[in-house]
Amino acid sequence: MTERLYLYDTTLRDGQQTQGVQFSVAEKIQIAQALDALGVDYIEGGWPGANPTDSDFFEARPQTRAVFTAFGMTKRAGRSAENDDVLAGVMNAGTPAVCLVGKTHDFHVTTALGVSLEENLSAIRDSVAHLVAKGREALFDAEHFFDGWKANPAYALDCLKAARDAGARWIVLCDTNGGTLPAEVFLIVQAVIAAGIPGDRLGIHCHDDTGNAVACSLAAVDAGVRQIQGTLNGLGERCGNASLTTLIPTLLLKEPYASRFVTNVAAETLPQMVRISRRLDDILNRVPLRSSPYVGASAFAHKAGLHASAILKDPSTYEHIPPEAVGNARVIPMSNQAGQSNLRARLAEAGIEVAAGDPRLARILEVVKEREDQGYAYDGAQASFELLARRELGLLPEFFEVKRYRVIVERRRNRYDEMVSVSEAVVVVKIGDRKVLSVSESFDGDAADRGPVNALARALGKDMGPYQVSIDDMRLVDFKVRITQGGTDAITRVIIDSEDGQGNRWSTVGVSANLIDASFTALLDAITWKLIRDGVRVG
Amino acid sequence: MTERLYLYDTTLRDGQQTQGVQFSVAEKIQIAQALDALGVDYIEGGWPGANPTDSDFFEARPQTRAVFTAFGMTKRAGRSAENDDVLAGVMNAGTPAVCLVGKTHDFHVTTALGVSLEENLSAIRDSVAHLVAKGREALFDAEHFFDGWKANPAYALDCLKAARDAGARWIVLCDTNGGTLPAEVFLIVQAVIAAGIPGDRLGIHCHDDTGNAVACSLAAVDAGVRQIQGTLNGLGERCGNASLTTLIPTLLLKEPYASRFVTNVAAETLPQMVRISRRLDDILNRVPLRSSPYVGASAFAHKAGLHASAILKDPSTYEHIPPEAVGNARVIPMSNQAGQSNLRARLAEAGIEVAAGDPRLARILEVVKEREDQGYAYDGAQASFELLARRELGLLPEFFEVKRYRVIVERRRNRYDEMVSVSEAVVVVKIGDRKVLSVSESFDGDAADRGPVNALARALGKDMGPYQVSIDDMRLVDFKVRITQGGTDAITRVIIDSEDGQGNRWSTVGVSANLIDASFTALLDAITWKLIRDGVRVG
Repeated sequence: MTERLYLYDTTLRDGQQTQGVQFSVAEKIQIAQALDALGVDYIEGGWPGANPTDSDFFEARPQTRAVFTAFGMTKRAGRSAENDDVLAGVMNAGTPAVCLVGKTHDFHVTTALGVSLEENLSAIRDSVAHLVAKGREALFDAEHFFDGWKANPAYALDCLKAARDAGARWIVLCDTNGGTLPAEVFLIVQAVIAAGIPGDRLGIHCHDDTGNAVACSLAAVDAGVRQIQGTLNGLGERCGNASLTTLIPTLLLKEPYASRFVTNVAAETLPQMVRISRRLDDILNRVPLRSSPYVGASAFAHKAGLHASAILKDPSTYEHIPPEAVGNARVIPMSNQAGQSNLRARLAEAGIEVAAGDPRLARILEVVKEREDQGYAYDGAQASFELLARRELGLLPEFFEVKRYRVIVERRRNRYDEMVSVSEAVVVVKIGDRKVLSVSESFDGDAADRGPVNALARALGKDMGPYQVSIDDMRLVDFKVRITQGGTDAITRVIIDSEDGQGNRWSTVGVSANLIDASFTALLDAITWKLIRDGVRVG
Repeated sequence: MTERLYLYDTTLRDGQQTQGVQFSVAEKIQIAQALDALGVDYIEGGWPGANPTDSDFFEARPQTRAVFTAFGMTKRAGRSAENDDVLAGVMNAGTPAVCLVGKTHDFHVTTALGVSLEENLSAIRDSVAHLVAKGREALFDAEHFFDGWKANPAYALDCLKAARDAGARWIVLCDTNGGTLPAEVFLIVQAVIAAGIPGDRLGIHCHDDTGNAVACSLAAVDAGVRQIQGTLNGLGERCGNASLTTLIPTLLLKEPYASRFVTNVAAETLPQMVRISRRLDDILNRVPLRSSPYVGASAFAHKAGLHASAILKDPSTYEHIPPEAVGNARVIPMSNQAGQSNLRARLAEAGIEVAAGDPRLARILEVVKEREDQGYAYDGAQASFELLARRELGLLPEFFEVKRYRVIVERRRNRYDEMVSVSEAVVVVKIGDRKVLSVSESFDGDAADRGPVNALARALGKDMGPYQVSIDDMRLVDFKVRITQGGTDAITRVIIDSEDGQGNRWSTVGVSANLIDASFTALLDAITWKLIRDGVRVG
């Protein structure tokens, strides 16, 4: 017997409270479409009337299978629900569902709101009844419910009952400050259900202030709630909300949830999880967190030598789920802790089969070690590692040769006596018999400018003849530089992350006493790897 | 009645399995000292004999109050504990405690290890007995314990009993693959204790593959274990280990833990948490995660308007703990009240006394905020912060003016047909009425060369007239670059560490769309700070 579990996404509302996040209307539309494709049950779009973006978004909102929901707050004291202009703004968005937040903690009612406990109960009752009368599906977000319960359980419960009796479809227990721990959540939810609020009308809304947002959500489900509120990638106020990116794979793949519940997310959709997570980071121009459960680039990276060799015998030895179930991939990074078995597995993933015991394996490991002694780090630069191995195996085509390059950065006064910077890069490349000179410049006010490295990247990518099609959609997405120790001298290590139009992301490394040389080496590797990945022939 | 709870840190061992992390011996020493100051009970330093860094570190390890622990694995089949050279390598490190990992999941014993179940039990028994016989405190890491228990509880338990009977002080239940959920952990730990392994000899070791590492650790404590293994900032294999940075504040500040347990972390040490967390990120050149529980820069940021206005009435309305308890600070957009006392303390550290309420304090905070919006980060660049404050306070002399500069990096073939790089920097500075043009070049084979930034530093430091005496002993010792977000555009942040002959070390920051500009800004700050520190007069 499976039970239905509902997923309520608040990326577009609580997720917008993330420090540094500010969605545009167009971005909200893109995210709403991605959420709908994923299969969440509810999409909370924002607070119509609270700011121009949210108001505009509700006018422009896309058609969705998910129930579109507007957020607002219960009516204020001293006026009726019909005459509250803030509530009217929310209703005017015309969504099939409306979620209103209201107080349930006596301290907040008197301190933050400054009204009597009875006035607050009426506000909940009247506001929810108003939604129902207008034919909307009504949700009540019980703000600070867990703290409220601990302070005054009778009053907190009265608030829930007011919403229940007024016809709220869902009563959502919110741990607004994020301080409640999972064991407490479990016990309090049990008590609430025992007191007469049915679990199939209860939702849970958690924050990650103690690192337990996911666990608290699961504890609430264990105790009987049947709706989970969360956000993609755990965006949200302060430390964020419960991450649906983490919760959805757990609910679909792990017991007891997989057998016990059914959600609106189809099993076939689950392998889109990595792509959806990256898409959101992309929209927000955030660097994806490598260590994210399920979807992080390191989530299935096996660095320990013992783990890596066991994985080769049977992946389930060190993986709790198959990475492909969520659209992720196994990574066996190279480092001086790994051995030949890692190496063969990593090569096999790149489509290069080498027999066990092949003497070239030892040679590759030797070169890796030499290079690591020089300051290279292949652990975070798989693409460069792959090229190194290909070189040793005689599988690296010479697509082009760099004859020379020059980059100039100048800072001086312009004719208006303002200090301005200009970067200019010249790259001379030989492709087959053809010699190509490319130049690129960038200057203050050029939004795309990131200085000399970007100027070099642009000059290099300007005219690659037969390769141009393949490299046209490449872009540099991250760039890390460290002074490190190579032998006795300080040297510079540069790691560049690149991305293409298909969402592939790869990392390359360059090392030199000269920062620009190191960057250029990493750039060349990035291009070469892309040409190999695309199966491009030497032109 | 409080009970003792032990904290076991594995940042230097399991934390080293983080993709992209490679500690040097010097870094391991710094981290060990920070951990010891924090008050963890055990510091697991690595696996002596497994790689040169770990071996060297154990020889150079600092004196600590914490019990220094070497990690290794149980003896291999077919030889005695005395004759296992891998185990001997671990023992030779001479640590007071040794932690050996061994199998407890029957599938792993036969598949990954390829030995009989009985042989594995002997390996555990003999290895632990060997440690005890040599006078070491013995810890047994029960690898894959939870999966093992689910597959074959009798055998998994036999493994624990073998370690217990051989005299292991701690038997650590490891959820190696990170797939076990908190409710399962609770039930299994309860069953283990009921089966005769005392809770005060049990530890827990969790990974974050389902986002539950912290919750699983707490569930294990709830069920009776008395040792928690974790890492700073949750570093570790794949998605990371349980974060001690999160767990320690929870254990010390939140109920039921705060009243029920006592740890070796002093209450006075807790406000160091943010600093220690940042220090680790700094060593690893990682961008601190803003959303980290307790220590993240956003952990107490109140963006929602309703929250921010309630916070002003009473901070406990939207904060589960006071931010200063962990050394963090409240962030309220549009309100700089919270920052002023911090600011005065920071200025006092730099020898600048400003009276409380001085209107310039508000102005400084505003400028810091503007600058941080542009991508500056003053946390790791105290010298630049000091200069900013001095500027606003009218305490910053104008020592010199940079009129213009130019740097060229060229890579081409030399007369011997070898590829060589040359950097050339020209800097034009005005000191008083004197205009000084300086040029510096660097090329391959020049050991001191670090490319364009060093060339600029050398040109700048070549002829500073009256200031030359003060800056002659300055050198650039570290250089960190990140692409970050400033407004809507990607920009580059450079942090430069400088050192002088007296061993002073200071950090400055520069931000620009252009890497070289950003570096130059940081260089100028570095020189200016040195001139102020040396009490140099404007010449």
